[in-house]
Amino acid sequence: MITHPSFTVEPWCLRETELNLDVLAQSESVFALSNGHVGWRGNLEEGEPHGLPGAYLNGVHERHPLPYAEAGYGYPESGQTMINVTDGKIFRLLVDDHPYDLRYGRLVAHERVLNFRSGILSRTARWTSPGGRTVRISSRRLVSFTQRSVAAVVYEVEPVDGPTTVAVQSELVANAQLPRFQGDPRVAAAIESPLLTEEYFAQDTRLRLVHCTDRSALRVAAAADHLVKGPQTTRWTAQCEADVSRLTVTADLVPGQPLRLVKFVAYGWSGERSLPAVHDQVDAAVAAAVSTGWDGLAAAQRAYLDRFWAGADVEVEGSARIQQAVRFALFHVLQAAARGESRAIPAKGLTGTGYDGHCFWDTESCVLPVLTFTAPEAVASALRARHRMLPAARERARQLGLAGAAFPWRTIDGAECSAYWPAGTAAFHINAAIAVAADRYVMVTGDEDFERGEGLELLVETARLWRSLGHHDAEGVFHIDGVTGSDEYSAITRDNLYTNLMARQNLISAADAAVRHPERAATLGVDDEETAAWRDAAARMAMPYNDTLGVHEQSAGFTSLQRWDFEATPPENYPLLLHYPYFDLYRKQVVKQADLVLAMMECPDAFSDDQKARNFAYYEALTVRDSSLSACFQAVLAAETGHLRLAYAYLGEAALMDLEDLEHNTRDGLHIASLAGTWIALVAGLGGLRRYGGDDGRQALLAFAPRLPEALSRVAFTLLVRGRRLKVDIGPSQVRYRLVEGEPLVVLHHGQPTSLTPDAPVDRPVPPAPVLPEPQQPPGRRPVGLPIEEEDLAATPE
Amino acid sequence: MITHPSFTVEPWCLRETELNLDVLAQSESVFALSNGHVGWRGNLEEGEPHGLPGAYLNGVHERHPLPYAEAGYGYPESGQTMINVTDGKIFRLLVDDHPYDLRYGRLVAHERVLNFRSGILSRTARWTSPGGRTVRISSRRLVSFTQRSVAAVVYEVEPVDGPTTVAVQSELVANAQLPRFQGDPRVAAAIESPLLTEEYFAQDTRLRLVHCTDRSALRVAAAADHLVKGPQTTRWTAQCEADVSRLTVTADLVPGQPLRLVKFVAYGWSGERSLPAVHDQVDAAVAAAVSTGWDGLAAAQRAYLDRFWAGADVEVEGSARIQQAVRFALFHVLQAAARGESRAIPAKGLTGTGYDGHCFWDTESCVLPVLTFTAPEAVASALRARHRMLPAARERARQLGLAGAAFPWRTIDGAECSAYWPAGTAAFHINAAIAVAADRYVMVTGDEDFERGEGLELLVETARLWRSLGHHDAEGVFHIDGVTGSDEYSAITRDNLYTNLMARQNLISAADAAVRHPERAATLGVDDEETAAWRDAAARMAMPYNDTLGVHEQSAGFTSLQRWDFEATPPENYPLLLHYPYFDLYRKQVVKQADLVLAMMECPDAFSDDQKARNFAYYEALTVRDSSLSACFQAVLAAETGHLRLAYAYLGEAALMDLEDLEHNTRDGLHIASLAGTWIALVAGLGGLRRYGGDDGRQALLAFAPRLPEALSRVAFTLLVRGRRLKVDIGPSQVRYRLVEGEPLVVLHHGQPTSLTPDAPVDRPVPPAPVLPEPQQPPGRRPVGLPIEEEDLAATPE
Repeated sequence: MITHPSFTVEPWCLRETELNLDVLAQSESVFALSNGHVGWRGNLEEGEPHGLPGAYLNGVHERHPLPYAEAGYGYPESGQTMINVTDGKIFRLLVDDHPYDLRYGRLVAHERVLNFRSGILSRTARWTSPGGRTVRISSRRLVSFTQRSVAAVVYEVEPVDGPTTVAVQSELVANAQLPRFQGDPRVAAAIESPLLTEEYFAQDTRLRLVHCTDRSALRVAAAADHLVKGPQTTRWTAQCEADVSRLTVTADLVPGQPLRLVKFVAYGWSGERSLPAVHDQVDAAVAAAVSTGWDGLAAAQRAYLDRFWAGADVEVEGSARIQQAVRFALFHVLQAAARGESRAIPAKGLTGTGYDGHCFWDTESCVLPVLTFTAPEAVASALRARHRMLPAARERARQLGLAGAAFPWRTIDGAECSAYWPAGTAAFHINAAIAVAADRYVMVTGDEDFERGEGLELLVETARLWRSLGHHDAEGVFHIDGVTGSDEYSAITRDNLYTNLMARQNLISAADAAVRHPERAATLGVDDEETAAWRDAAARMAMPYNDTLGVHEQSAGFTSLQRWDFEATPPENYPLLLHYPYFDLYRKQVVKQADLVLAMMECPDAFSDDQKARNFAYYEALTVRDSSLSACFQAVLAAETGHLRLAYAYLGEAALMDLEDLEHNTRDGLHIASLAGTWIALVAGLGGLRRYGGDDGRQALLAFAPRLPEALSRVAFTLLVRGRRLKVDIGPSQVRYRLVEGEPLVVLHHGQPTSLTPDAPVDRPVPPAPVLPEPQQPPGRRPVGLPIEEEDLAATPE
Repeated sequence: MITHPSFTVEPWCLRETELNLDVLAQSESVFALSNGHVGWRGNLEEGEPHGLPGAYLNGVHERHPLPYAEAGYGYPESGQTMINVTDGKIFRLLVDDHPYDLRYGRLVAHERVLNFRSGILSRTARWTSPGGRTVRISSRRLVSFTQRSVAAVVYEVEPVDGPTTVAVQSELVANAQLPRFQGDPRVAAAIESPLLTEEYFAQDTRLRLVHCTDRSALRVAAAADHLVKGPQTTRWTAQCEADVSRLTVTADLVPGQPLRLVKFVAYGWSGERSLPAVHDQVDAAVAAAVSTGWDGLAAAQRAYLDRFWAGADVEVEGSARIQQAVRFALFHVLQAAARGESRAIPAKGLTGTGYDGHCFWDTESCVLPVLTFTAPEAVASALRARHRMLPAARERARQLGLAGAAFPWRTIDGAECSAYWPAGTAAFHINAAIAVAADRYVMVTGDEDFERGEGLELLVETARLWRSLGHHDAEGVFHIDGVTGSDEYSAITRDNLYTNLMARQNLISAADAAVRHPERAATLGVDDEETAAWRDAAARMAMPYNDTLGVHEQSAGFTSLQRWDFEATPPENYPLLLHYPYFDLYRKQVVKQADLVLAMMECPDAFSDDQKARNFAYYEALTVRDSSLSACFQAVLAAETGHLRLAYAYLGEAALMDLEDLEHNTRDGLHIASLAGTWIALVAGLGGLRRYGGDDGRQALLAFAPRLPEALSRVAFTLLVRGRRLKVDIGPSQVRYRLVEGEPLVVLHHGQPTSLTPDAPVDRPVPPAPVLPEPQQPPGRRPVGLPIEEEDLAATPE
């Protein structure tokens, strides 16, 4: 956990006022820059010290054999892991005779700032060398949202207390040696030196390296060019070898006379294109970047982010930390997805190699819901990435003896990489999450071209999967057996309610979409018999319920399992999966992460208010939150059932997951889904946002049920809906709905239809919350993010 | 499958009249010799050609890391695999210039005979060399039952058609290169050259090699001495190097003047003792064998087997093949267990490296029941081997969060080696099988010393496991959740009925035994509270039952699962586990092997006759028998429910499993449990043997319900019971019970108490079987062993 006061609380940036080497790896993750295509961890320019050096290209991975001591039919044989590509952010510095290394000499001052509005990471340092010379170093860097393959750095060094001779080596470095983290199954498979040299080049101020991966056979190119500004003594030479291409700049400096390098870096990769093609591509991208210049790139970055924030910002009054956290979260969610285009969004974005850089279900269940309302074009890209995986998913379904498509539980390029099927392949719910995300995207954006194209095919192939996976029993009830739900402390269950309800929605959405696009549906082989079978299955979907307890069952029989002995579980034994065998977790009532609670958020109409309240209380007492994908959903249901203090506490946990490293693995990269969960907790939780189809099943009729916890005096957010911008401004007793832009719209406010027209804000009162006894968590498992009592009310937003 | 007529049908031996290289590996398994301590596969003396060279010492193994692409808490990290030790059966032969290799020249005649009464494997061959010289070669070999570490070979060569010069190299060979079998999870992990040289020696006619394994650190020694008899021209020299010690004998021979070598081989191994100690041990054992001489060893072997057959033989009239098969089976079951002493009985005995030489649950469920009535001292040894594993089993239970002891699903030395927990660790029923085997042994033999010693501790520690594994629900019913039963096509189920009933028996037996031995129980910490808790759990054990169908459920909810689509499953897709994912098998009604059917055999009193009949019919239609551990149990319940033709067919499948290689993996070793199943099918099936405690819970009151299928005219078997020998002689309409030896005894004949006194045979009529419609198997899954219609009635027993 990051316990020292690393970061100041500011509304629009993350500022670190001193360098703490103990949490260097964590800081590299939170200061990572990315545009969804290129990712640079927040490593120090000089390369060392480092926690985990990282430069990533979305989709660039290496394969490795998956070993099994006891193999089984259908087990994937090949794994994939995101690799560290050529690093273009390195500047080594020699001050007189001393390499600039913060671990030696004296670091007088060090500050890093990630600005959410400019999209620039800046750094200033003042360092006295072991020889006694003090220099000021500053850098600014960006990964461009507008020029997708480009990143740039401004690096400046200046002596403070007398003349000095400096040498700056600006490098492209491949196959950097990586540290090894042992014993945590959540970190990446280690692959040594994954890049095979194809070409290296250095001339004048230009550098280039081209490599190829071995088994995955991907070609990766990086090129750089520089602008050098310094005194007349400034000289440079370029040199290269297989894994390093380097520009060395020397200068004699005096105080007031800095040396400044601007470095433009471009990346390209392909599994298809030739060496000359990829080589030319990166040279061209660098040339374009040089032509735009640093100021041009920075201005475009700012403009891009201004547009984003205008449609996405969330204002929070009453907690400066939450205010900062939600913007930090939105910024990183955008970074993970903005320019991914046809490539999946990894669980850790491009901020680290955790989870091998794989994309999971959390992309669709957490990240896309946020982007649908804030950056919808990124959602279309992410869903097209899933569509690209359809051939592999169809093949996987065939291998599993199923119809349609079975999307992988974890993957980079579409092939299943999960080596433990009870928590991988059996988690079929990912297919419904993809389908529902596609349906939601179309409903919220009105993008019918997408629906007719990729959307319908995703819906149809997943519906086919569900129909073949489940079966009607003798009474006609439709069951889905042998699957694992969201909760990974249960597996291979019958009628997991979350899975069943999501499958139901998938089946209905597919049938409805087929009706809307009959010709396209026909080309996919869909006929009336098939859609009728989907609707039959949906209509008769099993919903396990315990009459005695008056609660739904997470899966059939769950409530009669033995209860986990929470009282006998010491705090150090969490997360349980590292201290207890799956066999024991699976057979007891203990919940890793929201499952039934998630079902109540995703499918609110399937439950009465009373059921929601009882279910929430029942499962709250069993949920240990050993996953970062839980607090946000619990926040939503806590808010819906009137437990606003609890909702606020869960909001805090979701919001501070990475800023405070609550799961102790932020070093491997940020939890993008949990960051998205900050928005979910605020907007779906405190804002009560639910999505309902209108009468024709298509009209985006949004429902809100806003209510604030005592600690917050205001939460305001903007949503993009079918070309409109809608702002919801929640106060303690009143909510203002304002259509900032677009055609009139009807929304529900606590169930009451409310018509909105542009520039005519509507105020509505907040009804009091139901008063219910506060649910209890297992001992020691109360939300850890935010001490509600001690919230810092002093800090004010900008 | 062995489809050619390899073997002639004879009552007391297995004779192969020609050599078929296509099934060489299978023949090496069926001709394997062993005493449970030393095992020699039936390899040809000249070493090549071979299927799988093999010499084994029970317990000698090497460890290897178990890899996991996704690790989990409690996964075993180290595997164990039985290794091929120093081979002492090699005789290489040079005839003039030509190495004797059956693949060259012309094999005029070749016969091998395994004699079940003498315990000797003999071989005669007539071979014409590529140079045109014909020689007669003969060998006889045995692995001594009476001198546990000793094996011996008589090897003789003689020219037939003119003078020749021969050279015979009698060898000890370590680290023989082994063939690799790919892609079948049932074969062994390959470890290259597992033996590290410690000592090699050759002098006069004496040879010795001492090696050590690397990770398991076991010292293995083999020594040999020879008697050489030949014409005056006979000369010999001994030489050795690291992995070979060799006696080379040369002679000029003429027809009528053979060269004869008698080779005595002794083995020793230890994980504790020093090199000189082990070295001396094998030299001493060889010296003792030389002193006994071949004739002495052969006579002792015969005497040992005479005693065995007097108490164990089963006579079958009406099927010469079954007659031969049951004696073949009993002979190999004895070989697997006779002198194992404190070492476990591997699933393949010492006949091959299949299943890595691991010991599984089938030892207790199939092998020990047979030996209990035929060679009880071997049962005590095998149970002491389990007792030796108790420290590891206690540690495993602790790791799993359970009380008592959790025995490994597969192991050599006691550590869990199962790398797939849903079909390994979750199969807790092995603990009950061990406990019940111990209880049965005590009941049948009256060995109270064993009970007071190892027996009670085994019962107590397993009872503790069950009590901690299960839980009482709100109504007080005791459930055991998250376990895998005998059927490996279901896993992680609730209330597997076989497991529950076996656990119940385990709990009751432990409580009863603690009452019988209160002082010993007290030293184990057992008090009245604990035994009461065991009895409570047993009394309230859940027994899932489907009222609508009127059948028991294999596990809770099983009968409402989707039925496997047998009609759409082509014959080449069996065994299903090699063609369908576990995920699909687990969630459907399809049964790999007897599970509920086994429960009905093991716990007959838990079911009414009607229930047995309905259950058998229901599960028969779902059982595909993809395991060799099924046919025998199905035979038993088929017989009990009156389906005698079907019982006979299953008897045939069990009996011919290895003789006809029905599972296509006899090459890796024999299925010792399935061989034992031949006896089970005959004695528990056609003989209807069940075991009931008498009034005091201890008296061995046996129950029989004999009934023959039409194809058989007589089945007679002898059982050892508490110092008695009881012979049951079943004819078509009448049964004769005869107490051959021992105190009077009461048995049940079809429920009627029948008093037996020595030498006063009692005849009882066989009541007619109930007439029920014959149960149906899944399409294509009828028993394959014996075409009932075409049974060869002509062959007659000796």
